[in-house]
Amino acid sequence: MYFDNASTSFPKPQVVIEGINNYITYEQGNSQRTTSKKSTDMIYETRKKLADFFKVKSTNSIIFTSNATESLNVIIYGLLKEGDHVVTTSTEHNSVIRPLLDLKEKGIITISWVECDSYGAIDASSVIKKVKENTKLVIVNHGSNVTGTIQDIEEIGKQLKNTGAYFLVDTSQTAGHICIDNDKISADFIVFTGHKGLLGCTGIGGFYINPEVNINPLKVGGTGVLSELLSQPQGLPLKYESGTLNALGIHSLYHSLDYLNSISIDAISEKLLRNTDRIIKKFSDYKEIDVYSKKNKLGIVSFNISKVQPVRISHFLEEGIGLKSRAGLLCAPLIHEHLNSNPFGCVRVSISHFTSEKEIERFLSFIDEIIHNLNNIKNIKVPQVYETPTIYSV
Amino acid sequence: MYFDNASTSFPKPQVVIEGINNYITYEQGNSQRTTSKKSTDMIYETRKKLADFFKVKSTNSIIFTSNATESLNVIIYGLLKEGDHVVTTSTEHNSVIRPLLDLKEKGIITISWVECDSYGAIDASSVIKKVKENTKLVIVNHGSNVTGTIQDIEEIGKQLKNTGAYFLVDTSQTAGHICIDNDKISADFIVFTGHKGLLGCTGIGGFYINPEVNINPLKVGGTGVLSELLSQPQGLPLKYESGTLNALGIHSLYHSLDYLNSISIDAISEKLLRNTDRIIKKFSDYKEIDVYSKKNKLGIVSFNISKVQPVRISHFLEEGIGLKSRAGLLCAPLIHEHLNSNPFGCVRVSISHFTSEKEIERFLSFIDEIIHNLNNIKNIKVPQVYETPTIYSV
Repeated sequence: MYFDNASTSFPKPQVVIEGINNYITYEQGNSQRTTSKKSTDMIYETRKKLADFFKVKSTNSIIFTSNATESLNVIIYGLLKEGDHVVTTSTEHNSVIRPLLDLKEKGIITISWVECDSYGAIDASSVIKKVKENTKLVIVNHGSNVTGTIQDIEEIGKQLKNTGAYFLVDTSQTAGHICIDNDKISADFIVFTGHKGLLGCTGIGGFYINPEVNINPLKVGGTGVLSELLSQPQGLPLKYESGTLNALGIHSLYHSLDYLNSISIDAISEKLLRNTDRIIKKFSDYKEIDVYSKKNKLGIVSFNISKVQPVRISHFLEEGIGLKSRAGLLCAPLIHEHLNSNPFGCVRVSISHFTSEKEIERFLSFIDEIIHNLNNIKNIKVPQVYETPTIYSV
Repeated sequence: MYFDNASTSFPKPQVVIEGINNYITYEQGNSQRTTSKKSTDMIYETRKKLADFFKVKSTNSIIFTSNATESLNVIIYGLLKEGDHVVTTSTEHNSVIRPLLDLKEKGIITISWVECDSYGAIDASSVIKKVKENTKLVIVNHGSNVTGTIQDIEEIGKQLKNTGAYFLVDTSQTAGHICIDNDKISADFIVFTGHKGLLGCTGIGGFYINPEVNINPLKVGGTGVLSELLSQPQGLPLKYESGTLNALGIHSLYHSLDYLNSISIDAISEKLLRNTDRIIKKFSDYKEIDVYSKKNKLGIVSFNISKVQPVRISHFLEEGIGLKSRAGLLCAPLIHEHLNSNPFGCVRVSISHFTSEKEIERFLSFIDEIIHNLNNIKNIKVPQVYETPTIYSV
């Protein structure tokens, strides 16, 4: 049973599996390099599908990267200059926190943090209150990977208009779960990843950039065309896309976006809303469980059981019923202060629209078993690997 | 017929195709995130296979990136500081030229270029002659993507010892074609890409870093573990690997490295040496053909026919016999001055060990046809797309 879709989605739709298999078996050539046009066209068409998906006008303003982290780094390091101020939230992922704090420590930028409530919700008006004259960028995590709470980015976008600050929305957790319409948000940057709700592969992500905004690329190099230029081409998307792209990953999105459109994002979000509600209602029967999520369209429910270390609960879920989850701080260290969660974070289960009623039943009944055996569980030894991965030096 | 393996290899071995299909169909979870250890282990094991492949001691010194361009950017921007001097060659790819010239234009570094001969060969001793007291880095393209010429990196490595300069070898074209043994080279950085001779997917590459050398990461962000740190973890490989890795791409290498070891790199290079020799010998029968390659283990033969624009020749090869090749400057603009090639570059065919005798025969007989119809060919209209890709603004 796979309940870790917020880390990466599983399963992938059958059309994606078949598309990948066909691509790796039959497709020849490197986009913009091999004299066959086909691979170049496939990448362009996927870019177009993404532009339609986020309702942005210019296809060439969709930039491919290897993941949302890279997208965020490109924008943060490429845009911010000495003296700039940034507004962001305590729900952000380390992919936002770490680059911002790096720039802050170097004395380049200042940061204002908008605090969230105990479910990770941000008040839209508290964002605008932090905006100052030198605010260059406002970064908002559209949906929290810890609690599943979704922020009102339309309202934030509306309030930010005419402030002069650029607006970046991180849709890592929301794309594929909620319709995102940039006509309503007016974001200057929309960051996405391919392997979560968009149901594609890992190793592919990207961002939309307002074509009127000019930032420095993070990487420069070969672009296939315009080889004669000894500096980076300045047109979109080439400026931000050096080196061979992840064609297989892009091809996975080529198919997964069609799949998402065919089953409809609304149907997915309705199902997840219903099923998270069901889990959370059941959890409310136990005084031993602290829940950090309200019902949500992201399929996320985070919790702790009676001060047991969350990695232990995740371990028992896997050992007991083969259920994969995630435990810990979940790469979002700041939000936990507001949740009043365990110092070791929480357990997160994250379901998808593929998750069956039966799987949810099995999960809930095993949680019941865990709670009835809490005293035993506290003493069982959990493999070290869950606590500190020993294969990595730190 | 696919004669553009130097852009990206095709076909992939059957074990790679099956491995990818299995992975996307059955493998659950995100490395270091999902509480299942399996995906983390697969990545570690592939790292280990790469460390063995390049004969470097520390598994954690193999860093995954999205391609060789990213690897080169990480090293060049992460290592070089104000006042540093770099020695490199005129055979380099734009993924080296553009970042170096960017740093030079900003007044940060100075560069000395080692010139190549008319086949792209570098004299090892001319590298050491350019090394100065402030030389921080020496970058050598192991094999030219334009001519197929391989440089004597063992000799260069030997001469660079005790100079204090770090040695970077770009094996984008050579890994999988020639055995690379870092015991003999003593490189501090070995850059590789997964989708060429290594027979994996696009979107995966990496580098070996001498663990005693410390550089700044290009990107920072979530690392799955150590979420509590608000700055980037400093241990290897986490320091340089933020965000979800391309697990599918890594899995392709997991299988392709086994495949390469099973058929032996020597067998591959022998076959390519024989077949490039055959093409070049046949080309020498025609006074109309200028050849820029000697027989080589990379499978590359670059040429021009009687001042015809190279994109035209590539177009006719595809239209006539469905043969895919590459034409132009091939992302390596500086080498062409030395080759005395067409102002529009050259046509490159690049075969693999999968290329059959029959395909080579068909190619050679079609070249014969082209030469006997040169006057017609010069007047046929070639689609604009081959000359300037109109879908990209520049």
